[in-house]
Amino acid sequence: MTKNMVKNAIGRMVPTEVNGQTQIPYKGVNQHRPEGVKYAPVIPTSIDFPDKGSKLQKSLESALKAAGLKDGMTISTHHHLRNGDFIANEIFKIAQEMKVKDLVWFPSASFPCHEPILEQLKDGTINRIEGSMNGPLGRFVSEGKMKGTAVLRSHGGRYQAIQDGEVKIDIAVIAAPTADSFGNANGLHGKSACGGLGYAHADFHFADKVIVVTDNLVEFPAIPMQVEGNYVDHVVEVSSIGDPAKIVSGTTRITKSPDRLMIADLTTKFCQVAGILVDGFSFQMGAGGTSLAVGKNFYDLMKRDKFKARFAVGGTTKYAVQMLEEGYLDYLLDAQTFDLEAVRSMQQNPNHIDISIFHCYDFHGKGTYESRIDVLTLGATEVDVNFNGNVNTHSDGYLLHGIGGWQNCLYAKCTILPVPLFRNRVPIIRDAVTTITGPGELVDVIVTERGIAINPKRKDLLDAVKGSGLPIKTIEELKWEAEKICGKPEKLETDDEVVAIIKWLDGTVIDSVYKVKP
Amino acid sequence: MTKNMVKNAIGRMVPTEVNGQTQIPYKGVNQHRPEGVKYAPVIPTSIDFPDKGSKLQKSLESALKAAGLKDGMTISTHHHLRNGDFIANEIFKIAQEMKVKDLVWFPSASFPCHEPILEQLKDGTINRIEGSMNGPLGRFVSEGKMKGTAVLRSHGGRYQAIQDGEVKIDIAVIAAPTADSFGNANGLHGKSACGGLGYAHADFHFADKVIVVTDNLVEFPAIPMQVEGNYVDHVVEVSSIGDPAKIVSGTTRITKSPDRLMIADLTTKFCQVAGILVDGFSFQMGAGGTSLAVGKNFYDLMKRDKFKARFAVGGTTKYAVQMLEEGYLDYLLDAQTFDLEAVRSMQQNPNHIDISIFHCYDFHGKGTYESRIDVLTLGATEVDVNFNGNVNTHSDGYLLHGIGGWQNCLYAKCTILPVPLFRNRVPIIRDAVTTITGPGELVDVIVTERGIAINPKRKDLLDAVKGSGLPIKTIEELKWEAEKICGKPEKLETDDEVVAIIKWLDGTVIDSVYKVKP
Repeated sequence: MTKNMVKNAIGRMVPTEVNGQTQIPYKGVNQHRPEGVKYAPVIPTSIDFPDKGSKLQKSLESALKAAGLKDGMTISTHHHLRNGDFIANEIFKIAQEMKVKDLVWFPSASFPCHEPILEQLKDGTINRIEGSMNGPLGRFVSEGKMKGTAVLRSHGGRYQAIQDGEVKIDIAVIAAPTADSFGNANGLHGKSACGGLGYAHADFHFADKVIVVTDNLVEFPAIPMQVEGNYVDHVVEVSSIGDPAKIVSGTTRITKSPDRLMIADLTTKFCQVAGILVDGFSFQMGAGGTSLAVGKNFYDLMKRDKFKARFAVGGTTKYAVQMLEEGYLDYLLDAQTFDLEAVRSMQQNPNHIDISIFHCYDFHGKGTYESRIDVLTLGATEVDVNFNGNVNTHSDGYLLHGIGGWQNCLYAKCTILPVPLFRNRVPIIRDAVTTITGPGELVDVIVTERGIAINPKRKDLLDAVKGSGLPIKTIEELKWEAEKICGKPEKLETDDEVVAIIKWLDGTVIDSVYKVKP
Repeated sequence: MTKNMVKNAIGRMVPTEVNGQTQIPYKGVNQHRPEGVKYAPVIPTSIDFPDKGSKLQKSLESALKAAGLKDGMTISTHHHLRNGDFIANEIFKIAQEMKVKDLVWFPSASFPCHEPILEQLKDGTINRIEGSMNGPLGRFVSEGKMKGTAVLRSHGGRYQAIQDGEVKIDIAVIAAPTADSFGNANGLHGKSACGGLGYAHADFHFADKVIVVTDNLVEFPAIPMQVEGNYVDHVVEVSSIGDPAKIVSGTTRITKSPDRLMIADLTTKFCQVAGILVDGFSFQMGAGGTSLAVGKNFYDLMKRDKFKARFAVGGTTKYAVQMLEEGYLDYLLDAQTFDLEAVRSMQQNPNHIDISIFHCYDFHGKGTYESRIDVLTLGATEVDVNFNGNVNTHSDGYLLHGIGGWQNCLYAKCTILPVPLFRNRVPIIRDAVTTITGPGELVDVIVTERGIAINPKRKDLLDAVKGSGLPIKTIEELKWEAEKICGKPEKLETDDEVVAIIKWLDGTVIDSVYKVKP
């Protein structure tokens, strides 16, 4: 049983110490004010970087050695190459061969392609993962097999943790589809092109040592400089950083499921009735099939009624690119390009802007873009009657997903969760979510195929839909409907041991994830 | 007489304390290693920046009050609007009206348009200027009238001082030709368009409070985001930030003086003979008439011999834009656009890149662009037989110019000073310069209308020009020729009091400027 558990402001038990570090329990929305100053990296000097090729290392291994890789270090990587990434696995294989122990892997996200890292988790090369994880790694953690405790943060929370010195990165390794020998790098060109490199922004600003690994080394300057060489220590050229077929899938598609399409249509109608879809509005949609359907609906309405959006924030796909190119969108602010069309657009279109996590999501900045977004849709594995959302665990307790930008997105002016009432006969809306990823007071609307629940805190939205004919229900009514069909779900029994904590976007701990019972 | 003077590594007497702050005497090229960590600003939180318009203040005065303007603060401004700037004067007029005292003005440069600030210097509103100064302000300082001691830094040294915490900026005020209410800003659009805003990069990253003042407030997002709103506290809309006619002069012209043209031709021939002008080379030229003539020569040679440059770093003018547009230049990396053509090009051409001082000049980064530049020309008011250069004082002791990027540029692979042998019958090459702005060991070549002197340290260049027929002379020979014509200059007598110090790019003190004798 994990010791020193306290109940936080949202009623969840969380540990006050994790991996030897003191933790602050969640205090409520906008209740935790940071203290002190940002993390201050050591001052470098150009004395150490005098010549044309001085940053070039002959291999990733020699770069890691030059960066001083040793026991206990924190190594960061990024998911720009998504499920096609070759570099993270390579780093930990090298560390294993060097007999380095107890590393902390600090990825911006992990993918199924990182399953080989289980080997270094098992043999103690890696102590723990701090970062979103999924699939086999999440299962490993859920079964209590990881040496340290996992720490999950949102994309913005990852930035906040680095910036505030909560996590000190010893070595950041940035896989870059194009780079020069000074370390300037971008994701727009080369055989492994992935779009932007905005998840690495905090890493190169604050890490002690920064390594850029590329399979497309070009003459200085590599333009655009998404990664700024003035922050980079070492550059390595390798034959391949990833599998292009898995870097940009090209398979993001609008859902064809009639239920999901109905949810998308209800979401769209809600936005119309609520007066959100007006000239100059802004939105953010994910790359899921339902979200894309909502986006397509918006697009059709803009064409029909002749209005346009001022900006959209992405994760972007070909659908957003089409809106931009046809003039229904002034600007596309993009932290992650999901398909080849989006990569092409970011290469060519000056109004398709490469942004970083700092810009859209870092809560410990002087504002973020999120609070300027009019409407935004998000998925969830579970929602509860208090509108709390879960995106990390399934109802069986397994930790199978990262947070992504989910928490950060809750700050939009209207946050909508279009979710089915149940999946595989497991209700989505419940008395209490298995894990609280984000507090219900920031979730405005739940749209299901059987009705729409508006958060009672949003009286303005409740007033706006009065008499509209939309199927407005209470969240309890939606829960009962699901239970009528699927039966009331049994209470999940877990072990006492905390295997992961969920950080809120301000660095406090909002919930714990427990070891599953065998 | 100023106390605590010590002789530094280049033989100049410098004070060990200035304005109450301990100073490190210059130790030699690449001899001073910084200690400790970068300056760490206080962690902000989005709790304080929740709403769409929350950053808007109704006037510059209310913004300065909101930012907490009080006695002794350091206020930074920038010279993006050059001699057309309205904002710096306005700030100190407001401070004077508020009866605030002992401010430190920390501009990236000052211009003749800032003469009204003499009033606040005289009445104690401003204690001192730390930053390049010229014309009337320089004269005021030279005559010992400023309360505090002036501190002059190169553009890169200014970045270094902010980054390293040597100068803590309390309030940065950024005059921006275009901005949105979140604080994103750029210099590319609007009636006061000036090009880039790259001198403000250190300021918005490290200042305690950041105010953006604009005369072109646009809907979020203002694109491109040369200033990132996530670092900005307050935004002010005013009717005019400057005089467009003086912001971009449009008058940068190639010299017509036969002597200067001869110097430019000799410079060009030297570069040819030395093997510098080959396909893929890189260069940096200022906007002075002689430099522009050298650039024009390069351009003609590239056209004739069918080769091109990989990149040029600017300050840019229409001449560099022409090279870029005609394909003789892959990339133009630009920290300051001097004319309307350069502004247009930066607006439209994705290969005309807006860079900041951090990128090109901050010596306390992991390298700078300068050491990658093949050839670069610089001006000077004086040079001595040890190749030391002076760009700050005239031979009469008056401090009339800032350092600009001069020191930073010395790190290019070949630094050439094309200078006339004398000006107004005052020899330029002397036994010792009045003020050492940069050490001779980094100056490679002096080109005059009567011959070329190569630094004896550059044996490679001396070998390269052997038998070329170029008029290669020793620096002493050039000095004698000037003295034959003008006579040997008398030794300058100054007062004992130090009125300004010249910082080297690593933060150490390379020389002192003394009060002129009446």
